[in-house]
Amino acid sequence: MTQLTNAKNNILTDEMRLVAEAEKLSPETVCTLIREGRAVIPANNRKKRALKFCGIGAQMKTKVNANIGTSQDYCNVDDELEKTRVAIEAGADAIMDLSTYGDIREIRKRIIAESSVPVGTVPIYEAVLLKRPSNEHRSVLETLTETDLFDTILKHAQDGVDFITVHCGVTHAIIKHVQSNPRTGGIVSRGGTILGEWMKLHQKENPLYEKFDRVIEIAREYDLTLSLGDGLRPGAIADSFDYAQIEELKILAQLAERARLADVQVMIEGPGHVPLHQVQAQVLLQKSLCKGAPFYVLGPVVTDVAPGYDHITSAIGGAVAASAGADMLCYVTPMEHLGLPQAEHVREGVIASRIAAHAGDIAKGIESAIEWDRKFSLSRKNRDWDAMIANALDPQKPAAFRKMRKPQKESVCSMCGQLCVYALANGEKVL
Amino acid sequence: MTQLTNAKNNILTDEMRLVAEAEKLSPETVCTLIREGRAVIPANNRKKRALKFCGIGAQMKTKVNANIGTSQDYCNVDDELEKTRVAIEAGADAIMDLSTYGDIREIRKRIIAESSVPVGTVPIYEAVLLKRPSNEHRSVLETLTETDLFDTILKHAQDGVDFITVHCGVTHAIIKHVQSNPRTGGIVSRGGTILGEWMKLHQKENPLYEKFDRVIEIAREYDLTLSLGDGLRPGAIADSFDYAQIEELKILAQLAERARLADVQVMIEGPGHVPLHQVQAQVLLQKSLCKGAPFYVLGPVVTDVAPGYDHITSAIGGAVAASAGADMLCYVTPMEHLGLPQAEHVREGVIASRIAAHAGDIAKGIESAIEWDRKFSLSRKNRDWDAMIANALDPQKPAAFRKMRKPQKESVCSMCGQLCVYALANGEKVL
Repeated sequence: MTQLTNAKNNILTDEMRLVAEAEKLSPETVCTLIREGRAVIPANNRKKRALKFCGIGAQMKTKVNANIGTSQDYCNVDDELEKTRVAIEAGADAIMDLSTYGDIREIRKRIIAESSVPVGTVPIYEAVLLKRPSNEHRSVLETLTETDLFDTILKHAQDGVDFITVHCGVTHAIIKHVQSNPRTGGIVSRGGTILGEWMKLHQKENPLYEKFDRVIEIAREYDLTLSLGDGLRPGAIADSFDYAQIEELKILAQLAERARLADVQVMIEGPGHVPLHQVQAQVLLQKSLCKGAPFYVLGPVVTDVAPGYDHITSAIGGAVAASAGADMLCYVTPMEHLGLPQAEHVREGVIASRIAAHAGDIAKGIESAIEWDRKFSLSRKNRDWDAMIANALDPQKPAAFRKMRKPQKESVCSMCGQLCVYALANGEKVL
Repeated sequence: MTQLTNAKNNILTDEMRLVAEAEKLSPETVCTLIREGRAVIPANNRKKRALKFCGIGAQMKTKVNANIGTSQDYCNVDDELEKTRVAIEAGADAIMDLSTYGDIREIRKRIIAESSVPVGTVPIYEAVLLKRPSNEHRSVLETLTETDLFDTILKHAQDGVDFITVHCGVTHAIIKHVQSNPRTGGIVSRGGTILGEWMKLHQKENPLYEKFDRVIEIAREYDLTLSLGDGLRPGAIADSFDYAQIEELKILAQLAERARLADVQVMIEGPGHVPLHQVQAQVLLQKSLCKGAPFYVLGPVVTDVAPGYDHITSAIGGAVAASAGADMLCYVTPMEHLGLPQAEHVREGVIASRIAAHAGDIAKGIESAIEWDRKFSLSRKNRDWDAMIANALDPQKPAAFRKMRKPQKESVCSMCGQLCVYALANGEKVL
């Protein structure tokens, strides 16, 4: 039984009740949103461990996902467990283990055991990694089979993964189109690139597209939420809203419909690199084409030229996307486009993304978000520094900054001193 | 003679030609924009020193201003000169010296001598500071006279200041309105608060409003660009677009018209704290009411609750404001709301604000901005790391990050390693 099966039968599950409480909605509303495919609760039904459930979709607070995981260059499970803790402590609502090196299954199991929030994965990374050791004489892409892909997905479901990215919309036809119509940034999704190269080599259709029913079958059994990946997402500002992106989105909309009919929870992944004036349109198009399916965007970053600051470029795009209706933001760390992030970059990425999500929530009209700011500003007017620090989106930084630049007079700050507007307006004889 | 006098007479000045070159516009276009009051070139006509001129307005790149200056708690001229250098090196287009302590005139002169970009000030800070030492028995607000205000403005003009913030729109009527209709965040502009408290104490109208012709007279003589300050800007998300803010904006629009008629260059200052869904409307309203006058916004920050990260909250608001037509962004540093920034915070603030301005410029359709991203993405696809670092918005950070997380294989990065999409798509046998 999946959450969607229950919703279709008007059965209120514990997960729905907990999400309803967190979102200040009625359980009935949550149930309706899930039934309509406008919200999901990623929660693998075989997982024993208590989970902080995460509702993603309409009327709910915008969520933040943090990607962690090993790479060929930095492959240490303890580092990734540390990043998991840091991300969750900083307020991430979900974690994706994108490990691409080492004993991926073991790493995944340990991250799932560590995480109090839902865990997502991209199974194809493991599928290609497993082919490597025994086949040095042939390339991985040559030896990789359809069966490998489905077997890996099944394994992830069995391990308790809550949601998976599957690039089911990368069709042979789109890949051919991109070959004859080169993009500025090319194809930047790793999963999309692997499938694209595999299809070109074998001259076959994408198995995840052609045999989507097999994906659905596994997902339904474990209530594994499908996150339909945008393998053709723009990876350069110049490629946003191009034919390949939109053709794939159209296919994802059709696949989402099939998933929902089969009681499988589904969300849609979105870009990527998008110029600021197109961000709202990206969300509106997805929402319309995909009939309100939750939209999970990566950034979007609003310029290509600021590596080292992509937590900021993506906070800009993410805030606008959220305000337009995006439901979950995949964080981007300052290390994006440059290397594998360390724990400190994970933290910065989560905070920046939470700022974007919160700015979006105010714009979405979410009462608790609006109230947070109102109360906070009253503390500011009252110069209640303890309350400001305690209730800040991240208390650590303002606490450290205030210590770093202490004022002589504790009631004000060292920016304005005797010109503190609140002291002046309060009739204190500071001038 | 001011730039505006010349523009009205269709005389192309050196300043117009240099700005035209920088903006890839014709000098005639720049002249027309100035004549129409849709652009300004802040450049005090008594200043001897060569200046990097800065065009602010329609069809031009969005500019970034960095505030520096001493405070009661941290008053060291060398620190402020260092911040001036750091801000300009990081790419600030203008500097405002907001010193509120020490020998303000001397500090101002040294900053003007140090700066290769236009320098702005807020004269009222000096006016109140100068009253302090000899009048300990009475408050500064009691002894401060109308003459003090105008004398200080004249002194700033004589010292070579290029633009000044004057809170001419803070009228007695609006102050009374705010008294009987308290705001969540109150009045957060220092100049606006000083004038408001002065008016309440003396039961008089704002001299800068009542005797605006005297402000105009000084400004015209020195071609001092007026930046009409928004003393009633919202300082809390809950106060955005309230009666006080809009009533003041209406007055600023009238004063701007009077300034232009008198050949005085003028721009309008804008908020402040604004929820994301109102940012565009803020800009559209100002542009319409003020007949296209350049709009110089402070942030806007899109949430109150993230002190320590207001370079990010303001990059979000600033990018959206720029894309809607704002012409100059006043940076906000991570130290905002907490204390006086140090040089490192100045640098972070300028970079974040430049990211916002550039994202806005892409949305505005500025060709050079769009081309920068396109070329940058080609370098990325070609994995030309040297070009990426050299052409990054800030080269320092990506250079440091790439060193910090080195890949074994120089051609890729340590995030993806063997899964590098560009290597895969290039047919390199990485898998």
